[in-house]
Amino acid sequence: MALDYAFLTGLPPLEIDHAFTTKDTILYALGVGAGTAAAGGDDDLSFVYEPGLKALPTMAVVLAYPGFWARDPRYGITWQKLLHVEQSIELHAPLPVEGRVLGRMTIDEIYDRGRDKGALLHVSRRVFDKANGTLLATVRQVNLLRADGGFGGKAAAPTAPQPAPDREPDMVVSLPTSTDQALIYRLSGDTNPLHADPAVARAAGFERPILHGLCSFGIAGRAVLGALCGNEPARLRRLDVRFTSPVYPGETIETRIWRTGDGTAAIESHAIERGVAVMRSGHVKYDA
Amino acid sequence: MALDYAFLTGLPPLEIDHAFTTKDTILYALGVGAGTAAAGGDDDLSFVYEPGLKALPTMAVVLAYPGFWARDPRYGITWQKLLHVEQSIELHAPLPVEGRVLGRMTIDEIYDRGRDKGALLHVSRRVFDKANGTLLATVRQVNLLRADGGFGGKAAAPTAPQPAPDREPDMVVSLPTSTDQALIYRLSGDTNPLHADPAVARAAGFERPILHGLCSFGIAGRAVLGALCGNEPARLRRLDVRFTSPVYPGETIETRIWRTGDGTAAIESHAIERGVAVMRSGHVKYDA
Repeated sequence: MALDYAFLTGLPPLEIDHAFTTKDTILYALGVGAGTAAAGGDDDLSFVYEPGLKALPTMAVVLAYPGFWARDPRYGITWQKLLHVEQSIELHAPLPVEGRVLGRMTIDEIYDRGRDKGALLHVSRRVFDKANGTLLATVRQVNLLRADGGFGGKAAAPTAPQPAPDREPDMVVSLPTSTDQALIYRLSGDTNPLHADPAVARAAGFERPILHGLCSFGIAGRAVLGALCGNEPARLRRLDVRFTSPVYPGETIETRIWRTGDGTAAIESHAIERGVAVMRSGHVKYDA
Repeated sequence: MALDYAFLTGLPPLEIDHAFTTKDTILYALGVGAGTAAAGGDDDLSFVYEPGLKALPTMAVVLAYPGFWARDPRYGITWQKLLHVEQSIELHAPLPVEGRVLGRMTIDEIYDRGRDKGALLHVSRRVFDKANGTLLATVRQVNLLRADGGFGGKAAAPTAPQPAPDREPDMVVSLPTSTDQALIYRLSGDTNPLHADPAVARAAGFERPILHGLCSFGIAGRAVLGALCGNEPARLRRLDVRFTSPVYPGETIETRIWRTGDGTAAIESHAIERGVAVMRSGHVKYDA
């Protein structure tokens, strides 16, 4: 069944109401590895311990999280072949550590790469503080629908390749993941069995469960927040990455950072044990 | 102010009503280190993943958890000098993975070891399934009140020393803890800053935050459950330990197990990096 472009792009926003507590905020931070060194007293403590608790900016991705909505048969998406390829967060205000948020998700565009190459589905979600209506964050995601190309839609706008600068990075931050990292992360809402069940992971062609892409994203976010923003969430304005390969729990994610201007940087992340780039074409905006 | 023995032992049971979800059950299991190897496909998976989820028997210690009740000034306990020295759980039925439980906590006895040696406070909590009234577990705890001895009470019943058998253990199980182990464990309810805040830990005489005694207890429980009960929670009937030294997050807990009879065993646990016994006089009853 071909994708129904007019139906999908004409859908009203999907609204998600989400109440969360400081426990959830801490659990998210532990899920992206904050606190592994905190027992020794490092800066991470303020993300995992109530006195002076701060929310990691990347927590925006789990606030008003819509679940695996693409699986709903009404959308006509071959969800089994969906790949999450790009992620972006734009922060408009610091995230609260508890409260209630409202998410409004829309399908922004679907590009047709042809029957063999699939379709690119662009969705975004605006997250509001429900108490006062403040827009907190815009969360954008691009999914490659490998089996849904050829529906007669417009070709994908050629995305400019955004390679990292051809020089040594200005900063390199290595952050470990634990072997139970995906099991902790999934408690923040993405319970896809691919990240927990060895049988499901093998059936999908992986040797064992892989880390959530958004968990890797949060770890890159921690690297950037520490290196560029002095661990002050309010200073991180935007983070974009393209996922290029999965991470296995237990691997170390090395994030390479190049300052590219006043308050901008390029990043790339690598799973160093395998020497594989896991996030590329990363961009950061921050208050320098 | 001396302890008021008649007041304390005459108090009505403290009732605690506690609703919990599968997410809480998984979070407890992750808090005691289950799942660190699960990504590779070991038996732990059933404690950290919803399909076929089972509750670890030691989760009884956080069900209907009364909080740090001894801190309430009405009890007249010098809580700053309280040390948790013994823990026991007796399982009457397998714990549910979600639902609502009712706890009934009583102060069973207070022994007077004299002004210099403090008092021994024995408390117990019976945990019931609220839906059907089934008694699930009896949780017993002994606290040493270092500053509350000499209140004129009865001397402690001499506890028989219960050393481990004088031979090589029948089984040895080494389980790692992660550096963020206490930060995960505390989300199950015991938020004492001693386990998270380096400044509080230093003020208490530790080089850094220590693991919760009940977290170590849960790890010993996992060792016993795997080695003696084939990871079947229903086969574990009782587990008692005496705490002899704190564990630091990141250390490996080696539990030594001696079969002592039909369905009974003695255990001892050591923090192997420091060569220190952390739990002694441990006893297990199980369905052999």
